Amino acid sequence: MANDTPGAGKAAIIIGAGDATGGAVARRFARAGYTACVCRRNGDQLAPLVADIEAEGGTARAFGVDARDEAQVEAFFRTVEDEVGPVEVMVFNIGANVNFPITETTSRVYRKVWEMAAFAGFLTGREAARYMTPRGEGTIIFTGATASMRGGKGFAAFSGAKFALRALAQSMARELGPKGIHVAHSVIDGAIDTAWIRENFPDRAALDDEGGILKPDDIAETYWQIHRQPRTAWTHEIDLRPWIESW
Amino acid sequence: MANDTPGAGKAAIIIGAGDATGGAVARRFARAGYTACVCRRNGDQLAPLVADIEAEGGTARAFGVDARDEAQVEAFFRTVEDEVGPVEVMVFNIGANVNFPITETTSRVYRKVWEMAAFAGFLTGREAARYMTPRGEGTIIFTGATASMRGGKGFAAFSGAKFALRALAQSMARELGPKGIHVAHSVIDGAIDTAWIRENFPDRAALDDEGGILKPDDIAETYWQIHRQPRTAWTHEIDLRPWIESW
Amino acid sequence: MANDTPGAGKAAIIIGAGDATGGAVARRFARAGYTACVCRRNGDQLAPLVADIEAEGGTARAFGVDARDEAQVEAFFRTVEDEVGPVEVMVFNIGANVNFPITETTSRVYRKVWEMAAFAGFLTGREAARYMTPRGEGTIIFTGATASMRGGKGFAAFSGAKFALRALAQSMARELGPKGIHVAHSVIDGAIDTAWIRENFPDRAALDDEGGILKPDDIAETYWQIHRQPRTAWTHEIDLRPWIESW
Amino acid sequence: MANDTPGAGKAAIIIGAGDATGGAVARRFARAGYTACVCRRNGDQLAPLVADIEAEGGTARAFGVDARDEAQVEAFFRTVEDEVGPVEVMVFNIGANVNFPITETTSRVYRKVWEMAAFAGFLTGREAARYMTPRGEGTIIFTGATASMRGGKGFAAFSGAKFALRALAQSMARELGPKGIHVAHSVIDGAIDTAWIRENFPDRAALDDEGGILKPDDIAETYWQIHRQPRTAWTHEIDLRPWIESW
Repeated sequence: MANDTPGAGKAAIIIGAGDATGGAVARRFARAGYTACVCRRNGDQLAPLVADIEAEGGTARAFGVDARDEAQVEAFFRTVEDEVGPVEVMVFNIGANVNFPITETTSRVYRKVWEMAAFAGFLTGREAARYMTPRGEGTIIFTGATASMRGGKGFAAFSGAKFALRALAQSMARELGPKGIHVAHSVIDGAIDTAWIRENFPDRAALDDEGGILKPDDIAETYWQIHRQPRTAWTHEIDLRPWIESW
Repeated sequence: MANDTPGAGKAAIIIGAGDATGGAVARRFARAGYTACVCRRNGDQLAPLVADIEAEGGTARAFGVDARDEAQVEAFFRTVEDEVGPVEVMVFNIGANVNFPITETTSRVYRKVWEMAAFAGFLTGREAARYMTPRGEGTIIFTGATASMRGGKGFAAFSGAKFALRALAQSMARELGPKGIHVAHSVIDGAIDTAWIRENFPDRAALDDEGGILKPDDIAETYWQIHRQPRTAWTHEIDLRPWIESW
Repeated sequence: MANDTPGAGKAAIIIGAGDATGGAVARRFARAGYTACVCRRNGDQLAPLVADIEAEGGTARAFGVDARDEAQVEAFFRTVEDEVGPVEVMVFNIGANVNFPITETTSRVYRKVWEMAAFAGFLTGREAARYMTPRGEGTIIFTGATASMRGGKGFAAFSGAKFALRALAQSMARELGPKGIHVAHSVIDGAIDTAWIRENFPDRAALDDEGGILKPDDIAETYWQIHRQPRTAWTHEIDLRPWIESW
Repeated sequence: MANDTPGAGKAAIIIGAGDATGGAVARRFARAGYTACVCRRNGDQLAPLVADIEAEGGTARAFGVDARDEAQVEAFFRTVEDEVGPVEVMVFNIGANVNFPITETTSRVYRKVWEMAAFAGFLTGREAARYMTPRGEGTIIFTGATASMRGGKGFAAFSGAKFALRALAQSMARELGPKGIHVAHSVIDGAIDTAWIRENFPDRAALDDEGGILKPDDIAETYWQIHRQPRTAWTHEIDLRPWIESW
C-alpha cells in the first residue's frame, strides 16, 4: 500500500455499513489508505467488518449512529473530523425495500421508509457538505435502486423515498459541483449477493455461478473509480446491473 | 347544466384549494355538477371560493383539514362520503416551493416540505383509493412541477418532495389502473397567474397580456379532460406550460 | 355543427391516415369543421374514409403522397394551402413497428424504418412549420409509441426512429412554441383496436369488451383537446394507454 | 506493460478516431496491450496518432473507412479479425453537431447527420455484435452527448441522430447483455478540450486551467473502467461532465 495511499490520514464515511455493499465499499476505501468510518444503528454488529479490514492491513472504526437523528449525525461527523481526519468520502447506503398495496401501506411505514432512505440521506449528505465545502473537495455517493427511476406497483413508499434521494443527489451535485464536491447517484438494479438473498431467494443466489447476481466488491470498485475521477470528467448518474438482468 | 351533470350527487375533493389552481379546478368540476369539496388548513378562508361557485349555480363545501394529519384526512373523507356522496375525483394540489443552499436547509424545512407535498399526497391519495377501489372507478390527479423531474440547485427539499409525489402517482397508477381508478400526474412548468406572482414578479405577471403565464382556468380544463378520458385511453403523465416558457 | 366550426375554411393534415388512428383523427377534426386532408402512399385506399367523413357532414380530401419524398411533401402542402385553406393542424401518424435481433436487422430495414417514422416526420413537420410560422399559429402532433421512451430488445430500428421523432418534436416545440406553434408528442402505449390486431392478436382484441384496447376515437379526442388548449397552458408530452395495460 | 496486457493479441476498434476523444481512447486501450484499430474516412490523417501510440510502446493500425458504407464496414471488421485478432472492444465516437432553425434544416443535413451519428453506429455496432456474440464476450461503447437526452432548440437533426444512437445502445444492451456482450452509452456533457474548441471558443478553453473543460484522457479512462467491469456489475448508461458545467 506504500505507494498508493491517497487516503492516508483521511476518513471515508459509510452510512449503512450493515449490509454487504456497505461493507465492501468500506474495505475498498480502506485498501486505498482511508480510515473506513462505518456506521449503523447498532455499532456492535460492525466488529467483524472492522476485524476484516484490519486483517487486510487497513484501518477502520465502527460507530453506532441512527442516521435519522440530526444530533447523532452531527456528533458522528464531528468525532470523525476530530479523531480520524478530514472526511473526504461519504457513501450513503441505507435502503428500506418494502412492497405493499397502497391501501395497506400504513402511514408509519410510509414515513419510516422515507426517514431511513431519504431523510437520513439528507442529514448525512448535508453534514458531509458542511465539512467538504470549505476545503473544496470530497466525494459523496448515494446508492439508488431500480425504484429510484420507476414507481412500480406496491412501491409507493420505497420509490417515494428513492426518488427523493435521487432528487437530493441531483440538487447537491448541481450546487456543490462548482464548489469542488463530486456528488453521484448510482442505480443498483438487481439482486445483490447477500446472506439474506441466499436464504430467501436460493434460485437467484444460484445465478452466482454464472455471475448473475451483483457482487458487493464489484459495486465497491465502481464507487472507487467514481471517486478517482478527476474533476474534468465527473459522473453524476450511473447504473449497475448483472449481465443477465432484464431492464 | 341540466343536460350535462355527470357529477350530480358526487363529490370532487380538492386538496389544497387555497391557491388559484385549486380554486379553478373546484369551479370546473362544480360546473359539471360535482359538489366541490374544497379543503385547506384554515377552512374559513375558503368562503369566497364557495360563494363564487354558488354564484355560478354550482355546489361547494369548505373543509378545514390539515392534510398531513391522518385522523383529519380520514374523518374528512368519511364526512364527504356520508354527507355529500361518493368521492369520484380527488385532486391533490399542495405545493411548498422553497429554495435554500443545501447547508442552509434545516431538517425542519426538509421534513415539513415533504410532509406538505408528499406525505399529505400519500394520505389523501390512499384515502381516495380506499373509497374508489370497491366501486371500481374514480380519478386521482396529483399536481407536479418542474421540480418533479429535475433536482435543481437549491431544491433538495422541494424536489425531494415532488419526486416522491411523482413516484406515488406512478405506483398508484400501476396498481389502481387495472382496478378502474385513473391516476395521473401533471407537471405544471411555469409561473401561475396568482396574486402572489402579481405582487412579487410583476415582470412575469406582465406576460399575461400575451398569454405568457399559466392561467388556473386553463389548467383546470385539462384536468377536467383527463377525468373525462374513457378507460381505453388514459393519460398518466402530462405537462403544461405557457407557449413562451423555456424548458 | 353551425355553432362550433373553429375549423371552417381551414385544413387539418393527417399524415399516415391509412390506419385506424389516422382515420379517427381525421374524422374528429372534420367534425369541428376542418377540411381533413388525409394522405398515404396510395391515396385511392382513402376513399372509404373520405366517404365516411362526408356521410357525417364533414369535408375531406384524399392525397396520395409518399411522405419520405421531399418534393411530394412540398407539393402536397402547397396544394392544400392553395386549394383548401391554411394548414392549421398537422398530425404525423406513420409507424413502422418491426422487431429483429440486431444481427438480423438489415441496413435496408434500419434505414427504411427511419425514413418512414422519422425522416417523413421531419419533412412534414418542417413543411407545416414553414406555413404556420408566418401566421403565428397552428398545432403539430407527432404520434409516438412505447418505443419512443425505451430501446427494447429487438427494437434497434423501430426505437431508433421513434426516439428520433421524439427529439424532433422536442426540438420543434422549443423553437416554435415562442412563435405561436403548439408542437406535441404523444406516446401511445398499448395495442390499438385495428383490423390487423383483431386478426393477429385475437386475445388482445377480446379485451375490447372491457375497454382493454386503445380505441382510435378516444386517441383522436385527446388530440383534439391538445389542439384546443389555449397557449397559456400547452401540453408538450402526453401518454395514452388502456387502463389494464402494464407499464 | 508486461504484467498487465489483457489486450495482447486482441483488437480494440475505435470508430471516429479523428478527434481528441477517439485518439485518447485508442491510446488508453493500446496502453493495456490491445492493438488499437483506429479508423476515419481519411485514414492517412491518422498517422500521427499511430506514431504516438507506437512511441509509447503500443500497437496501432490506421484504416480509412467510411462508417456509413456497409461494405466498407464489413470489410474493415473482417480485415481486423483476420490480420490483428479478435475484436474485443468497439468504441463508436462519431459526432455531427449542427444547429439550425427547423425551417432552415435541409433534408440533406438531416439525413447526413443521421447517417454519420446513428446509421454508422448501427452498421459498426451490428458488425461488432456479429463477431462478439459467438465468443460470448466483448465491449461496445457508444459516445453520446447532451443532445442524446434532450431535443434542444435548433437540434432537430443532431438530437434526432443522438436519440437514435441511444435507442440503439439500449436495444443492443438488452439483447446482447445475456449473451455476454457489454454495451454501454456514455453522455458526454460539456466542451471537450480539442484544437477546434481552442480556436473557436477561447473563453471555454481558458477554463482548462481550472479543469473546466473535458480532457479526452479522462474520458478514455472511464471508458477503460467500463470495459474492465466484471459482468456481475455492468454499467449501461453513464454521464461525464466537468465539475463546473451547468446541467
